[in-house]
Amino acid sequence: MKVNDTFLRACRREPVDYTPVWLMRQAGRYMEEYMEIRRRYSFLEMCRTPEIACKVTLQPVERFELDAAIIFADILLPLEGMGIRLEFAKNEGPVILNPVREEKDVNSLRIIEPREDVPYLLEAIRLVKKELSGRIPLIGFSAAPFTLASYIIEGGGSKNYLHAKRLMYTESGLWCRLMESITSTLTTYVNAQIDAGADAIQIFDSWAGALSPQDYASYVQPHTTRLIENISGRVPVINFSTGTSAYIETISQCGGDVVGVDWRIRLDVAWERIDHHRAIQGNLDPTVLFATPEEIKRQVETILHMAGGRAGHIFNLGHGIIVGTPVDNVRALVDYVHELSSQRR
Amino acid sequence: MKVNDTFLRACRREPVDYTPVWLMRQAGRYMEEYMEIRRRYSFLEMCRTPEIACKVTLQPVERFELDAAIIFADILLPLEGMGIRLEFAKNEGPVILNPVREEKDVNSLRIIEPREDVPYLLEAIRLVKKELSGRIPLIGFSAAPFTLASYIIEGGGSKNYLHAKRLMYTESGLWCRLMESITSTLTTYVNAQIDAGADAIQIFDSWAGALSPQDYASYVQPHTTRLIENISGRVPVINFSTGTSAYIETISQCGGDVVGVDWRIRLDVAWERIDHHRAIQGNLDPTVLFATPEEIKRQVETILHMAGGRAGHIFNLGHGIIVGTPVDNVRALVDYVHELSSQRR
Repeated sequence: MKVNDTFLRACRREPVDYTPVWLMRQAGRYMEEYMEIRRRYSFLEMCRTPEIACKVTLQPVERFELDAAIIFADILLPLEGMGIRLEFAKNEGPVILNPVREEKDVNSLRIIEPREDVPYLLEAIRLVKKELSGRIPLIGFSAAPFTLASYIIEGGGSKNYLHAKRLMYTESGLWCRLMESITSTLTTYVNAQIDAGADAIQIFDSWAGALSPQDYASYVQPHTTRLIENISGRVPVINFSTGTSAYIETISQCGGDVVGVDWRIRLDVAWERIDHHRAIQGNLDPTVLFATPEEIKRQVETILHMAGGRAGHIFNLGHGIIVGTPVDNVRALVDYVHELSSQRR
Repeated sequence: MKVNDTFLRACRREPVDYTPVWLMRQAGRYMEEYMEIRRRYSFLEMCRTPEIACKVTLQPVERFELDAAIIFADILLPLEGMGIRLEFAKNEGPVILNPVREEKDVNSLRIIEPREDVPYLLEAIRLVKKELSGRIPLIGFSAAPFTLASYIIEGGGSKNYLHAKRLMYTESGLWCRLMESITSTLTTYVNAQIDAGADAIQIFDSWAGALSPQDYASYVQPHTTRLIENISGRVPVINFSTGTSAYIETISQCGGDVVGVDWRIRLDVAWERIDHHRAIQGNLDPTVLFATPEEIKRQVETILHMAGGRAGHIFNLGHGIIVGTPVDNVRALVDYVHELSSQRR
């Protein structure tokens, strides 16, 4: 069997024959075979049943020539073990029944024990690894501390992150303790994924874009830095955030072998500001997948041109695949990335 | 009566005794006196009744030592004259009954005639000017072409701007014609506000942050540039957008005496990238107004420090005031800006 390690080589900025590509939320509702399963199980049931999580993880890998799989899971899976009660309300996304707002809530948070609290996730990783048997690498992931903190403080999604920011501004000692507790949980959560076989880790700071650079530096950066330090050196780490392009230098100072960027910045500008001694991942606008194949090709070409054939570029969207994305366009994208990047070499 | 032209002087980068301040959405639901009126009239009724719009415009000016008033209006007011049917659904924001999606929709758009289509807005401006009688300047405003285009294509607010971007990518000729039509409407809309007495204009590109820098440059920049050119030279123009900090140089190339920035970028970094020969407006995170007076003071100090005492800084939030903001904190903010900036001089 052919072993494709292009993705891992690119993470380490080693020479590759073509630009590797995977897509955030590549296993998801845009695929009919996913929806067939989704209609029979709730989202959390799918995450908590290793055979289903494994199957869904492999669906996009079977459909497209992707250079990495990413475990089917959710950034909120550690919450239950922390003592937070989570539900996925129908069509409403995650709802937290006991949001963390006060000192007593922070005091009662537990540091999770992954083998007891998320055994299904570790088993799913082992199953996928076995199925893949080295064909392509498997990515594990977690939220960054700020994103997880804002979820559990707000109690779900949020427009302005008022509760989270109010805690940050008015009780900075308590905020710090909360972030430390979350960071400890995420450290053990991610390391357990690596123990189970994850070949790389992506840290998602999906909501960091709500912050000013000053607040990010004061209230968030030390904790994200500690998380990445705690998990580094074992497998490549991708440090991904959105809405933070204006202070991407600060983001990249938190660490990570690869910095993942959204589409609100030119890839060449981003890479220069991050530093060419780090790998970069990105950064097609996910809505481009609703355009014609010609437009997709043109935009892939633009991004590859900005990457300049330099070692250490992993192609991805700037955020997750949007529901309704045509499957044929996803295939076209993956194939264009491979085809056009090999031609450039 | 004292004439306070600090805001206008700062727009022109002339020396001032203190940093002027006004706040986006300063007339709004966080004020009890606003809510008293709002309970009796719909939002559109308030906009369309000059006496009410005038009254509401002046409410924050009477409460706080603001250096400018901004006319109470909405960026969607030009739509009716363009032939678009708009409703404000209860608690749901604007809903457009006939969204623009196809060639025939674009063809049927009219260029508005402000004296016929928005006479109430022009009358409100005249009333406010009379009431203010030169005490402080009055700002008029409009959406930027992209923001208005996405509203009328999506038919309301949107998460991914799929319809707008699909049109942009797949029918770029039609997109261009739509943007040209909107730009013509906005030109006449803004010029009529200046004729009626507006002392400055702010252009809001509130949704530009949905775009990649490449798409902004190709599909949006020429139109925003034309709008600003069409209205420049008469009164100061503030070019405001959010989520665009990573390519603020491109934004500022569209023109404007002042560039308004959100809080996702350091003010000193933004000003250097915009160029110190332009004025800058911003950029406190609106959620800071939910913190303690001490934290508000600390963050005001930080922003004033980054402005470096240079001529041409107008203090503002990075986005509109959030519903629920404590009125006392708004007053504290305005007073801190004045007090701390005079001390620095």
